[in-house]
Amino acid sequence: MKKRVAVIGAGPSGLAQLRAFQSAKAKGEDIPEIVCFEKQSNWGGLWNYTWRTGLDEHGEPVHCSMYRYLWSNGPKEGLEFADYSFEEHFGKQIASYPPRAVLFDYIEGRVNKAKVRDWIRFCTTVRMVNYNEDKGNFTVTVHDLKADRMYSEEFDNVIVASGHFSVPNVPEYPGFDKFNGRVLHAHDFRDAREFAGKDLLLLGSSYSAEDIGSQCWKYGANSITVAYRNAPMGFKWPDNWKEVPKLERVDETTAYFADGTSRKVDAIILCTGYKHHFPFLPDDLRLKTANRLATADLYKGVAWVHNPKLFYVGMQDQWFTFNMFDAQAWWVRDAIMGKIEIPTDKAVLLKDVEDRVAGEDAGEDAHDAIHYQGDYVKELIAETDYPSFDVDGACEAFFEWKDHKKQDIMAFRNDAYRSVITGTMAPIHHTPWKDALEDSMESYLRN
Amino acid sequence: MKKRVAVIGAGPSGLAQLRAFQSAKAKGEDIPEIVCFEKQSNWGGLWNYTWRTGLDEHGEPVHCSMYRYLWSNGPKEGLEFADYSFEEHFGKQIASYPPRAVLFDYIEGRVNKAKVRDWIRFCTTVRMVNYNEDKGNFTVTVHDLKADRMYSEEFDNVIVASGHFSVPNVPEYPGFDKFNGRVLHAHDFRDAREFAGKDLLLLGSSYSAEDIGSQCWKYGANSITVAYRNAPMGFKWPDNWKEVPKLERVDETTAYFADGTSRKVDAIILCTGYKHHFPFLPDDLRLKTANRLATADLYKGVAWVHNPKLFYVGMQDQWFTFNMFDAQAWWVRDAIMGKIEIPTDKAVLLKDVEDRVAGEDAGEDAHDAIHYQGDYVKELIAETDYPSFDVDGACEAFFEWKDHKKQDIMAFRNDAYRSVITGTMAPIHHTPWKDALEDSMESYLRN
Repeated sequence: MKKRVAVIGAGPSGLAQLRAFQSAKAKGEDIPEIVCFEKQSNWGGLWNYTWRTGLDEHGEPVHCSMYRYLWSNGPKEGLEFADYSFEEHFGKQIASYPPRAVLFDYIEGRVNKAKVRDWIRFCTTVRMVNYNEDKGNFTVTVHDLKADRMYSEEFDNVIVASGHFSVPNVPEYPGFDKFNGRVLHAHDFRDAREFAGKDLLLLGSSYSAEDIGSQCWKYGANSITVAYRNAPMGFKWPDNWKEVPKLERVDETTAYFADGTSRKVDAIILCTGYKHHFPFLPDDLRLKTANRLATADLYKGVAWVHNPKLFYVGMQDQWFTFNMFDAQAWWVRDAIMGKIEIPTDKAVLLKDVEDRVAGEDAGEDAHDAIHYQGDYVKELIAETDYPSFDVDGACEAFFEWKDHKKQDIMAFRNDAYRSVITGTMAPIHHTPWKDALEDSMESYLRN
Repeated sequence: MKKRVAVIGAGPSGLAQLRAFQSAKAKGEDIPEIVCFEKQSNWGGLWNYTWRTGLDEHGEPVHCSMYRYLWSNGPKEGLEFADYSFEEHFGKQIASYPPRAVLFDYIEGRVNKAKVRDWIRFCTTVRMVNYNEDKGNFTVTVHDLKADRMYSEEFDNVIVASGHFSVPNVPEYPGFDKFNGRVLHAHDFRDAREFAGKDLLLLGSSYSAEDIGSQCWKYGANSITVAYRNAPMGFKWPDNWKEVPKLERVDETTAYFADGTSRKVDAIILCTGYKHHFPFLPDDLRLKTANRLATADLYKGVAWVHNPKLFYVGMQDQWFTFNMFDAQAWWVRDAIMGKIEIPTDKAVLLKDVEDRVAGEDAGEDAHDAIHYQGDYVKELIAETDYPSFDVDGACEAFFEWKDHKKQDIMAFRNDAYRSVITGTMAPIHHTPWKDALEDSMESYLRN
């Protein structure tokens, strides 16, 4: 096979793609030449922690949105690889909400085993992708940041796996230009201890607000005020935590809310989400979508309807994560290798997208959404040789997880779940999350 | 004239270029079509303040490196436009170290008068520039960030005026990944009040360290520790300010220096300089230079020796600023309009660069460097119709300024200088800098 395939990004989605091709090769199949371009000096994508914010050592935007002391905010039983269990990696079952370093180690373990590191060109950022109508292929222009050299190569297919939780959505509110404290986006949040003793304002009502607020509470913030636009998160918060309606404005020291109340605050953290941002893609190739389960313009959630030689992996909003990326990556692999046929009639592709959007819209609540995405994962898996697993069981773990959060938002990480891959029960972690200030891998694996 | 010229950036250098062309037009000359691409929503470049850090509202790197309460760190008499005096703009002479907002107003005043705003496409970032060997022109690919549309146009000349104090140089020191306080580059510093009462560590020994340290001191930091690599700045610092040798490492709370001392600090500000960074330029067009007075590869300090249809304005390290950009912009204008001939023998261009480097290297101190750059400004002005002015007088202002800093680093901004454009003396500002916490334009202009 003479095909050349470019994979953009070596995070969970990109690595799933490399593993997908490698697993076919291991079965004796003739696979394309794979070149993966990764901006960072290591793999792992978002899970590759750095203290840096803003621009990195090469002057490029920092990818990392993670912070110290981050633990998985959903049970690991919902994201376990079907071809590489936690038990295989750690040699034993571990507790259900691993800290970042533990999950990084797990992600890395599978691709170390697959020996695909050589396929990746690190410190290499993609500057531009163009489709060549005449040749029917792509020119990918990249910048080798270490050598400070820009160059171009041609590829038959391009797979965009650069993520969509890296480029912050940063709204402005009246008075931000005068406020005396720090105003930062969740993307730039790194160490909760910086805010010990402080009065914090967080804007938002999704995972970032919930988790960064919880971190700051755990590490000693004086108070947490969270302003929502539409509805409060509504958990049973600690006494020094308050949800208030929309922020209207700030002055040098104080925030004013839509209900007429105000609060003196020391810093403002914008937990206002992320953008699908592809500065390296021209208009004819660039995905523009809301952050939802059924994205715009992707057949089967992965193939670009306007030119199905281009694929996107991991661009959906996510209940399922690692194993959904796997399901997508295996499917994309088979489409590129000709084992799955993408319809040539564009109307069929568009209809597929339309049906997926309607399917999502027909759901009424989170329960429906989880099932919807579970069904999507099942659909893709059924069309490839990715090991099938108990997706419904994973959905059940998500439902339990949501119940546990409702019961006690500061204690849900103390619960344990059963693996849908190996069938074994996770142990209860040795220390309740709120008391586990030391969260190294060593400490977490002590069970 | 059918030529089309692209100007990248509408900061002081880019605006100087627009004004240069407009002034020729005003004299009845036939000028090229000028299109200026500006990433920000307003002009002024670095002088266009924003509270934002990291990535902006469009997901693009924030250009602004300025902070609240910044006052010019050199006398305005060294940077005054020869064709637009401070007295013309403000209707009177003003004090010598204007705050940012006052200088922004001054920069804007000239280009408002010139009516060149229509030449600028705002919120439009340049993604790629390519030289077309066959046509002998450039294709410039830009992203209209508001419309989220990428498009390309062809130009006969390109002038890069995107600055080189916007992309931070961010070194790493052992332990940064564990330090519990904030680690930030000067580029992301915004409001000194955030650090009131704190013990700060600054790394560096140039303008950023000097000025950000002074700001934090002025607005109530508990202590300032500045670690230098080669030599201390050596001013007479306040009692709670200390210069120490090189940082060796940090742990969670404490910084350790090369002399064996250590200090518990709350935050670390990296005043470690900026990069010449042009992610939109391929290897054959991209300037790679140290930050020095005689740059690499630029004939007359502006024309790209490897393809002199491409120009760079403002890429030197700077004693002179606004009026040097003017001298360069007028020269570039005349080269493009055929009034100045650039030698066709590349050896001549290379020799020019070599001579400039040797000339700078022959200097022994700051005094020589100031004269060297003054002579460069005089050389360019002599070849165009930019109004000649007393460059030596401006050099004298710089020498006085340096003496004033040596006498009292926290009081040098209380001194006043004579304009080399209008010959009038600046008034003494009504409030000493260290006591002028309120620094609005209104307040500053009250004299």
